[in-house]
Amino acid sequence: MKRDEYVESLKEKNMDVYVMGEKVEDTITHPIIEPSLNSVGMTYEMAQEEEYEELMTATSSLTGKKINRFTHIHQSTDDLIKKVKMQRLLGQKTASCFQRCVGMDAANAMFSTTFECDQAHGTNYHERFTKYWEMVQENDWVVDGAMTDPKGDRGKSPSQQSDPDMYLRVVERREDGIVVRGAKAHQTGMVNSHEVMVMPTVAMKEADKNYAVAFSVSVDTPGILMIYGRQSCDTRKLEPNADIDLGNKQFGGHEALVVFEDVFVPNERIFMDGEYDFSGMLVERFASYHRQSYGGCKCGVGDVLIGATALSAEYNGVAKASHIKDKIIEMNHLNETLYSCGIACSCQGKKTASGNYYVDTLLANVCKQNVTRFPYEISRLAEDIAGGLMVTLPSQLDFDNPELRPYIDKYLKGIDGVSTEDRMRILRLIENMTLGAAAVGYRTESMHGAGSPQAQRVMIARQANVEHKKECAKKIAGIKEGS
Amino acid sequence: MKRDEYVESLKEKNMDVYVMGEKVEDTITHPIIEPSLNSVGMTYEMAQEEEYEELMTATSSLTGKKINRFTHIHQSTDDLIKKVKMQRLLGQKTASCFQRCVGMDAANAMFSTTFECDQAHGTNYHERFTKYWEMVQENDWVVDGAMTDPKGDRGKSPSQQSDPDMYLRVVERREDGIVVRGAKAHQTGMVNSHEVMVMPTVAMKEADKNYAVAFSVSVDTPGILMIYGRQSCDTRKLEPNADIDLGNKQFGGHEALVVFEDVFVPNERIFMDGEYDFSGMLVERFASYHRQSYGGCKCGVGDVLIGATALSAEYNGVAKASHIKDKIIEMNHLNETLYSCGIACSCQGKKTASGNYYVDTLLANVCKQNVTRFPYEISRLAEDIAGGLMVTLPSQLDFDNPELRPYIDKYLKGIDGVSTEDRMRILRLIENMTLGAAAVGYRTESMHGAGSPQAQRVMIARQANVEHKKECAKKIAGIKEGS
Amino acid sequence: MKRDEYVESLKEKNMDVYVMGEKVEDTITHPIIEPSLNSVGMTYEMAQEEEYEELMTATSSLTGKKINRFTHIHQSTDDLIKKVKMQRLLGQKTASCFQRCVGMDAANAMFSTTFECDQAHGTNYHERFTKYWEMVQENDWVVDGAMTDPKGDRGKSPSQQSDPDMYLRVVERREDGIVVRGAKAHQTGMVNSHEVMVMPTVAMKEADKNYAVAFSVSVDTPGILMIYGRQSCDTRKLEPNADIDLGNKQFGGHEALVVFEDVFVPNERIFMDGEYDFSGMLVERFASYHRQSYGGCKCGVGDVLIGATALSAEYNGVAKASHIKDKIIEMNHLNETLYSCGIACSCQGKKTASGNYYVDTLLANVCKQNVTRFPYEISRLAEDIAGGLMVTLPSQLDFDNPELRPYIDKYLKGIDGVSTEDRMRILRLIENMTLGAAAVGYRTESMHGAGSPQAQRVMIARQANVEHKKECAKKIAGIKEGS
Amino acid sequence: MKRDEYVESLKEKNMDVYVMGEKVEDTITHPIIEPSLNSVGMTYEMAQEEEYEELMTATSSLTGKKINRFTHIHQSTDDLIKKVKMQRLLGQKTASCFQRCVGMDAANAMFSTTFECDQAHGTNYHERFTKYWEMVQENDWVVDGAMTDPKGDRGKSPSQQSDPDMYLRVVERREDGIVVRGAKAHQTGMVNSHEVMVMPTVAMKEADKNYAVAFSVSVDTPGILMIYGRQSCDTRKLEPNADIDLGNKQFGGHEALVVFEDVFVPNERIFMDGEYDFSGMLVERFASYHRQSYGGCKCGVGDVLIGATALSAEYNGVAKASHIKDKIIEMNHLNETLYSCGIACSCQGKKTASGNYYVDTLLANVCKQNVTRFPYEISRLAEDIAGGLMVTLPSQLDFDNPELRPYIDKYLKGIDGVSTEDRMRILRLIENMTLGAAAVGYRTESMHGAGSPQAQRVMIARQANVEHKKECAKKIAGIKEGS
Repeated sequence: MKRDEYVESLKEKNMDVYVMGEKVEDTITHPIIEPSLNSVGMTYEMAQEEEYEELMTATSSLTGKKINRFTHIHQSTDDLIKKVKMQRLLGQKTASCFQRCVGMDAANAMFSTTFECDQAHGTNYHERFTKYWEMVQENDWVVDGAMTDPKGDRGKSPSQQSDPDMYLRVVERREDGIVVRGAKAHQTGMVNSHEVMVMPTVAMKEADKNYAVAFSVSVDTPGILMIYGRQSCDTRKLEPNADIDLGNKQFGGHEALVVFEDVFVPNERIFMDGEYDFSGMLVERFASYHRQSYGGCKCGVGDVLIGATALSAEYNGVAKASHIKDKIIEMNHLNETLYSCGIACSCQGKKTASGNYYVDTLLANVCKQNVTRFPYEISRLAEDIAGGLMVTLPSQLDFDNPELRPYIDKYLKGIDGVSTEDRMRILRLIENMTLGAAAVGYRTESMHGAGSPQAQRVMIARQANVEHKKECAKKIAGIKEGS
Repeated sequence: MKRDEYVESLKEKNMDVYVMGEKVEDTITHPIIEPSLNSVGMTYEMAQEEEYEELMTATSSLTGKKINRFTHIHQSTDDLIKKVKMQRLLGQKTASCFQRCVGMDAANAMFSTTFECDQAHGTNYHERFTKYWEMVQENDWVVDGAMTDPKGDRGKSPSQQSDPDMYLRVVERREDGIVVRGAKAHQTGMVNSHEVMVMPTVAMKEADKNYAVAFSVSVDTPGILMIYGRQSCDTRKLEPNADIDLGNKQFGGHEALVVFEDVFVPNERIFMDGEYDFSGMLVERFASYHRQSYGGCKCGVGDVLIGATALSAEYNGVAKASHIKDKIIEMNHLNETLYSCGIACSCQGKKTASGNYYVDTLLANVCKQNVTRFPYEISRLAEDIAGGLMVTLPSQLDFDNPELRPYIDKYLKGIDGVSTEDRMRILRLIENMTLGAAAVGYRTESMHGAGSPQAQRVMIARQANVEHKKECAKKIAGIKEGS
Repeated sequence: MKRDEYVESLKEKNMDVYVMGEKVEDTITHPIIEPSLNSVGMTYEMAQEEEYEELMTATSSLTGKKINRFTHIHQSTDDLIKKVKMQRLLGQKTASCFQRCVGMDAANAMFSTTFECDQAHGTNYHERFTKYWEMVQENDWVVDGAMTDPKGDRGKSPSQQSDPDMYLRVVERREDGIVVRGAKAHQTGMVNSHEVMVMPTVAMKEADKNYAVAFSVSVDTPGILMIYGRQSCDTRKLEPNADIDLGNKQFGGHEALVVFEDVFVPNERIFMDGEYDFSGMLVERFASYHRQSYGGCKCGVGDVLIGATALSAEYNGVAKASHIKDKIIEMNHLNETLYSCGIACSCQGKKTASGNYYVDTLLANVCKQNVTRFPYEISRLAEDIAGGLMVTLPSQLDFDNPELRPYIDKYLKGIDGVSTEDRMRILRLIENMTLGAAAVGYRTESMHGAGSPQAQRVMIARQANVEHKKECAKKIAGIKEGS
Repeated sequence: MKRDEYVESLKEKNMDVYVMGEKVEDTITHPIIEPSLNSVGMTYEMAQEEEYEELMTATSSLTGKKINRFTHIHQSTDDLIKKVKMQRLLGQKTASCFQRCVGMDAANAMFSTTFECDQAHGTNYHERFTKYWEMVQENDWVVDGAMTDPKGDRGKSPSQQSDPDMYLRVVERREDGIVVRGAKAHQTGMVNSHEVMVMPTVAMKEADKNYAVAFSVSVDTPGILMIYGRQSCDTRKLEPNADIDLGNKQFGGHEALVVFEDVFVPNERIFMDGEYDFSGMLVERFASYHRQSYGGCKCGVGDVLIGATALSAEYNGVAKASHIKDKIIEMNHLNETLYSCGIACSCQGKKTASGNYYVDTLLANVCKQNVTRFPYEISRLAEDIAGGLMVTLPSQLDFDNPELRPYIDKYLKGIDGVSTEDRMRILRLIENMTLGAAAVGYRTESMHGAGSPQAQRVMIARQANVEHKKECAKKIAGIKEGS
């Protein structure tokens, strides 16, 4: 699908979306939504470019056809590595969250989990899912992967909550399908998607059986309501002639609170219903794929921030100061460490029973754990180099005022040969990524997307095989077996 | 002066201020400015409260009268310590930059520098300044301390710039005074001030003589133009019924670009004019006092962020999780380390030749250096604990929409007994301090206010007496004298 | 007492000490013990020097006589600050642990705790202790403060241990005194002390009553056995003509395992016996004073390491490289941050009910918490600058071999004008402090002395008044009282 | 070659080695050398074990025979990855530096550099080297890769030094070969090697032509003198019945200063002689391979330290404390981050013109940069968990003394079921790795081996393609081409 076709295809969806308290008539042209649509659009646009073909497309294992890699079921560690590289590339092109990874990660987790669930329970989810996913590949759809429930009181399990809907659940079972109720929070890119694939958010026990449900439906299925989350500086996009102050005029991301008010799901779209013993596997696999993803996309966004920071130093006339050079080295070092983790967990991936490839769980969690730290330090260094002007700059409206412009042009100029406007643009881009709309993606999402830091620590504890390390230590220390 | 009298007194000023491209008719009631006015207002309001009298007021060394401590010339290390404590207190009350420290720090630097300059050059700046400052104390004025020039190409000195106005300078000398031209960037609280006291921004050499100028004038002196700097999320204040989304509805800070377009300064208001050999002293002393300040105010702001973070954990039902408790300990630890540095450089202060007290330069720089780091880590931990909802929350306008409110109320509830609204308020406050309007003060200003990190490192290198440490090491190592 | 008198006075003690499996006949001249004796000796020697009189001596509050500050009961915050400065000074002079702080800190904790215990229980420990301490001041004794019990299984309280002696306890009560059994681990400077003052190591409950015991006895009291702890590189001191390879030939520290095998303590030397409700206060106060101490001594040792590192860079010809200068700035920055914390908790000290001055508990714990981190980073930076030669240098025995010396002299030379020997000396000093005998004090003791890191975190949690911070946050966020 | 054969083969070498000032008659049985021999021995021993065959052996690209992987010329990225895994494995088995990587890394760098040099200069070094390396593979030799010159004044180039021998150089050219003079410092494993392969240590210019020399000779070639570097706690190996106090009795590493006093090198062993324009390539390639290596071996050593630390917590009865678990997670997280970097730079390797595989230079430098940091933090956490007893334990000689043993056994016991001896063994192992002989390898070598931190930063600066990142940023910011 080309970018324009994608946009056209979305127009047919009759979504129930609210932004800033008002129902959105046309999600395609809404100024607050548009930049995030553009980011998703890039996943289509770049797939058409020959230069990026190898990274952006793949050959479907289901149909043998050439497909967008975002809909690919990974067939090798090489596929896993290309995924990370594609994500870094798109991060460099959009400096934003391009939103389409969640569905890709959900699909690959669903593919192997349904297979193993079928083997254990004699269900036929894998076939259902495979058919469904062929359709997704065929239509080149964007699928929102929806995992995070509101959770209410975090100290309680789904069935212990005072309101039973705090985790999404089956409220009715019919012959032709199920009815579900609940909500999913922080739904990245939902408004730009064709479909939503719902998964449980935690490993569950028998008491939570009705919460162990996974399925896919169209985003405009009756009963689905989306409330657009607000971001730092979001309404700058509504300002007259908004450009400079946006930092990144063209691209953005978004997240929404999605309510499922008694939504009907037909049988062929159900991929788990009650097999609570597989909810943990699905969560863990999705999370691991998604933790790998962050080793790609956030590096790409980091690349832009490094570039912007280097330019700001240049425009200030300090590019050659040793402390500036050293800080830019540090930014690169941290960014490439993230990338190394993304590559390593891909390269060490393994084939699942279902035949697709799964990342190394330990290293994927290590990857994400670093993502919860380094973008913050990279941002801090960017703010250090950019200087205070980044947050004290006059607005574009001041700059557009002919009485004020000469003063701004004169006094906010950096080195000769660089216009004050360009200097403002770079500083606004850094603001966008460290404090503004993109900071939501580059910082907070780096922290909590694909699971908060503690979730990774729990996984690292489980996967690190400390028992083996103790045995090594005992042997070296001369401690006898059995002691 | 009471808070109301302060506000009244500002109304008499006929300032030339622009916000978002438009000239401001009434700075007192402008919704974007008002929160910052409220912060300054607290320096008056709290000085009236008996509970805070000891910290908020002092006995003038010039007049013997009780004055607001923000206008005090420090008479002891105890005064220096009380200054820090007052700042922490105000940070706790406003969660913002309360803007009035700059003038206090400028005055104390000017007091001792003019004294020593007079001794060296036979000038009479100290007397002039003292008379002027008596008037400030008498009228309980807010004085903006204006140091930072735009600087243009940082690789060049003032006189080497292609535009000679990139540093503020004397363009004309008359019998009754001087005419100055240039600009000062990042002027904290300028729009809420009665007066502005201008200082040079770097140590200068003879070639830069005309840039070595210090003086005070009223903020509405003809030729002074202020362009209000925009902050992250600033226009949320303009939204209908803005409250929850502001995070901190009542308080804020601001910074402005201030242009001096051929401003006349009468002789009695000139405190330096050409004594370039004292520009370095003035800069260093102001900077050191101001670096001390950050060991107070940023701790107070940090206290609020810690409190908000602890509440967010409580509302999520995770307050007792060991990793949450540990992170809150870490936030406190870092915050108290900053405070320790603020206290230490005060306690180790020394009397100057002029009689007022000056902080320990080395420790003040160490203090500020930590301030360029720890608030970032405290913010990161706050974002960790707060969770992703902080940046994906629906807007207040959604919450005010009666169709959406039930869904938001239902699904964004935390533990029982806490309203969704209160949970939103706390998350918005954390957003305000880590990504929003207050992040400008808590993060970027912590980085660059009172000098960027490298400025402190240069001072640490100069002050750390490594030669003495080498001698200690040689003695221990058994290396003979002279080798 | 002069240094020589001190040494003489120790000779009279008939201690039961073992080093490397052998009973020590003469602790004064034992080559492994001697450097640590020299460090304690400096507390006497420097007290005689006029230059250091103000820091090293004080006027006794008990007798009005001039005493060594190490025996002083602090009378003001100024005394607390001078204590820290004295410790930094001695750290600079010895580059080691000078061991005498423990008794000073124990005495000040005992002074106020016995007073409050007497008030609660009608005991007369304060008078007993005061009389005892007058004697200590009069005789200028070194007192080992003994707190840490072996603890066995850390998951169990004293009375729950399978061996009841894992915490020191009263095993018999006689009319004229008590008999105690148990051990104290990590006893710093014990072998160089005249007396040992024993304290409980944790807050206790009624079941542990017999463990709530505090007293003082002479180090040669029958039943006391000391086993000298081994340190990294300790036996280099035994090598022929040992000098260069020691790094620090003259000074060192030590710690010993001290066994109390049914030791009799006369009534007048008992300062707590069963008042378990005061064991926590004694522990907390001692720990806080001792955590303050580390903000002094470790900075002084750090000063020597910084000096040695700067020299090593100079000898390598890289002193002017920007990354070297920057790392030395960082070392100073971290070291002065520690010092700031030491100063701050002193300056914010308060008078106790008994009249002596006690440090600010929160800030003292913050101080020590930083000490568990920064010396490690300072060491890392020292190793970075020193270069690998520090751990690949030939031995002094090689250097003394006339066949090898020309090669070593030729090939291990740095810049012209500095002898290879001096270069080796500096590298060995850095080795000594980062990997060798002094690393035990500079690193591990920084970590665990005065309580391991987690102990400080527990205290920070208790002292940081997060409730107040929550109230501040609620007010700012607009959350109503009661919610 | 089996382990025994290896040891036998070394006996034939007539090396000129000095340890502690004395000439070593038999390097095989010298107690200080033996543990390091054992480490190298493991590279033979494990290659015989079926379980490890895939990692430890490879098929020679030169002869088609099965060879030890340490002599392999890498034929794929899979080979590069297996190299890292083999190194981690050996680190786990020895907890030491096993010394044999240097030759492997030198060979792979030499293989491709000689090829490219021949193409540029018409020399025939590649053929010579290939023949030589076939012999190495055939004989399963250990080859010491010798790069680091003493360097004298680091501020000066080789030819600018006041002593021309501070960098190894050609002093005579004969028909049948060359004569070289100079020294190589920090020669890891030299005494356990059959051969030494010498390389230049920096990129050179024409003036340094005589320093641009690479060759291989037997370690007992006349004129070669080795002085064994001393390590922390080295002489504990000489103590009677040394066992517990060693921490790691069986394994160790070593480094030596190697003097080349007019050593003759026959033509067929010369691989560079004057082609100064290829010295930089050889250095960079060797360094990059070697920086990759550290992503393997140091992780393996780290695994043992993690295991030992977990055991120490268990023996103390605190294994379940949340802060302990969290610190062990952090240790694992850091260690796996290093491993990820090792894997990533391998997986992203590329084929060279000569046909062998070369790591990704940027990522290999990023890998090593992390190695200069994380082992220090892992060590710090180990010391935190181990507790102070690690550095205050009595010696084994005390433990062997029947009078003292009961006290030590009683009082230093941890939880029930674990002997005091085992607890001591684990603490001594941690001491060994953080302060003792193995700390030299785990800490200082992590810092400086394969180049000091700044060397990697210079490479990161060169490789990070900041220009491309600037272009990305300009595009996003809306800055026009050409501006």
